[in-house]
Amino acid sequence: MTDKMIILHIAQLPPAGPLTSAVYERRTLPLPEIRDRECLLRVIYLSVDAGSRGMLDQASPYVRKLKAGDVAGGSGCVAEVIASRHPEYPRGTFVATMFASWQSHLVVAPDKMGPLLYTVDPALAPLSAYVGILGVTGFTAYAGVFLTVPLKAGETAVISAASGAVGSAAGQFAKIAGARVIGITGGTDKFEYLKSLGFDACVDYRTDLSGALRAACPDGIDFYFENVGGEVQRAVFALMRDFGRMAFCGQIAQYSGEGEPSGPNLMNVVLKRLTLKGFLCLPDSQDHYAEFFTRACEWYRSGRLRQHTAITEGLENAHEAVNALISGRHLGKQVIRVARDPTR
Amino acid sequence: MTDKMIILHIAQLPPAGPLTSAVYERRTLPLPEIRDRECLLRVIYLSVDAGSRGMLDQASPYVRKLKAGDVAGGSGCVAEVIASRHPEYPRGTFVATMFASWQSHLVVAPDKMGPLLYTVDPALAPLSAYVGILGVTGFTAYAGVFLTVPLKAGETAVISAASGAVGSAAGQFAKIAGARVIGITGGTDKFEYLKSLGFDACVDYRTDLSGALRAACPDGIDFYFENVGGEVQRAVFALMRDFGRMAFCGQIAQYSGEGEPSGPNLMNVVLKRLTLKGFLCLPDSQDHYAEFFTRACEWYRSGRLRQHTAITEGLENAHEAVNALISGRHLGKQVIRVARDPTR
Repeated sequence: MTDKMIILHIAQLPPAGPLTSAVYERRTLPLPEIRDRECLLRVIYLSVDAGSRGMLDQASPYVRKLKAGDVAGGSGCVAEVIASRHPEYPRGTFVATMFASWQSHLVVAPDKMGPLLYTVDPALAPLSAYVGILGVTGFTAYAGVFLTVPLKAGETAVISAASGAVGSAAGQFAKIAGARVIGITGGTDKFEYLKSLGFDACVDYRTDLSGALRAACPDGIDFYFENVGGEVQRAVFALMRDFGRMAFCGQIAQYSGEGEPSGPNLMNVVLKRLTLKGFLCLPDSQDHYAEFFTRACEWYRSGRLRQHTAITEGLENAHEAVNALISGRHLGKQVIRVARDPTR
Repeated sequence: MTDKMIILHIAQLPPAGPLTSAVYERRTLPLPEIRDRECLLRVIYLSVDAGSRGMLDQASPYVRKLKAGDVAGGSGCVAEVIASRHPEYPRGTFVATMFASWQSHLVVAPDKMGPLLYTVDPALAPLSAYVGILGVTGFTAYAGVFLTVPLKAGETAVISAASGAVGSAAGQFAKIAGARVIGITGGTDKFEYLKSLGFDACVDYRTDLSGALRAACPDGIDFYFENVGGEVQRAVFALMRDFGRMAFCGQIAQYSGEGEPSGPNLMNVVLKRLTLKGFLCLPDSQDHYAEFFTRACEWYRSGRLRQHTAITEGLENAHEAVNALISGRHLGKQVIRVARDPTR
């Protein structure tokens, strides 16, 4: 355990494509003091997600943008309280936060953070799950499946970017909702993983996507969880059933600075009376977070939710973690391990 | 008054672009006999609408397609009962139908038509209004504004193809809903018309559309009535406000056989949490037709609804009526006058 605090800053914004280590700069500071009703957290896992790349691309339409000099990060973390002047968060408590910059330690004032900070139970699930399927990642999928546009039992649901963190969670929530679930992913090696999570069928977007999707959804698609954009989106539009619904979570295919390609012709929205609805689970649906967390923990306990975690070691490899996410190299949730996980 | 019945058939499907008279063929038959509880109608006005062209284009995504030999038409008409064996529809009654083929006379069995046939009052409005703002055209606009996605008082509503039959009705309904209403149309000569209907501002899509739209909607757009597609759609997407809603009625820009151009990138659906909803008022919302008709007649009586009608004389000029509609040459509702209007 270090007695210094490391903070990752943006050294320079990257060009389009994969990140290099030149994007980030590590700065070292002494560990900060805490005041009354504050805690010092040692960060163990940081969440890596699509926004980690999108925020670096000034041309992208991503919500929040970073610039040179800013502290990197912005997603959740799991951490251990290593010093405390707050009675409800004693030393040794494990907590999750919904937002965290990419640094090794954080000073937090729980009273001011409300629902953004909460304790987690390492006996229920590995700590890393609390930035994955039991964290904001899981909540994103939950919001798309349960809060955005209705998905009914017996319907056919298609999940894009299905082997990723949000997609693999969305597919499991759609199964819980009673749907038949088809995952779109890249590479048949990922099919086994999705099958093990309960997906009914898988389609490889790198082959004859339209044909394979039609074969997997012979009666068409009722519900689409959109997280990829591009050709996949186009193929799904063509197969939507009348009165179909699309929950728009993101379009990861365009988060790497390659600009904004055209979308599908929207005549099908009229002809099939489709409903498309975009969502950003935070802050829009923050009031549902507690409900999500309770239900997701129950489902996890009963074995209905699972997720693979791909771990990148050390803040110094943050760029590799982002590249792996964007390229879809790994299964499930991607995290950066910032410090030793004391529960493993 | 003829004692023959003229029926317009499709002689040959047209190539892309304007129709010629070669598209239709007139066939003449003796006036048919009527049986018990049937009526013979003399058609006075036939509705011309976007579907009149879209149905002729096999490549278009339009719902219903016609082929060579089929009877033309398919929208509503206003007619006079000229022979009757049904006590509720005596000779001299004026009626409207929601669907009619393009012919000079129709035999109808009111008991079998349910809400598709109903009497209209020539003292309230000119007969032609009953295929326009008080007919299926008006109902289309009503469904988009009141039944599809909510429009709230005080919001900014943008109406595309605003000087057309559906658009000019949608703008007036949006005013009744309490919105600030901006119409997009082609040509400043149409601005006066839209202003006279109560539109708050107008934008010409043939000039700097994005700039003009931004100037007219400095706080962005809450509600969009989509009936055109293409560049107009793209410009509107860029100016939508968070949680904005789009009612998708049609995309008239692509009903003339030029194929299906790309649409807008849909990342804004996520970032702005937009809701897009397509609708076909018939048959989906048929249960609301009576409610629409009652309210629309009341608003018409009180002067809150008006519409210009552009009349094309004679079934033999049907192709010109369709071309005028697609080119946006005329204001308001386009109809074909098939027979003398005895109320004028």
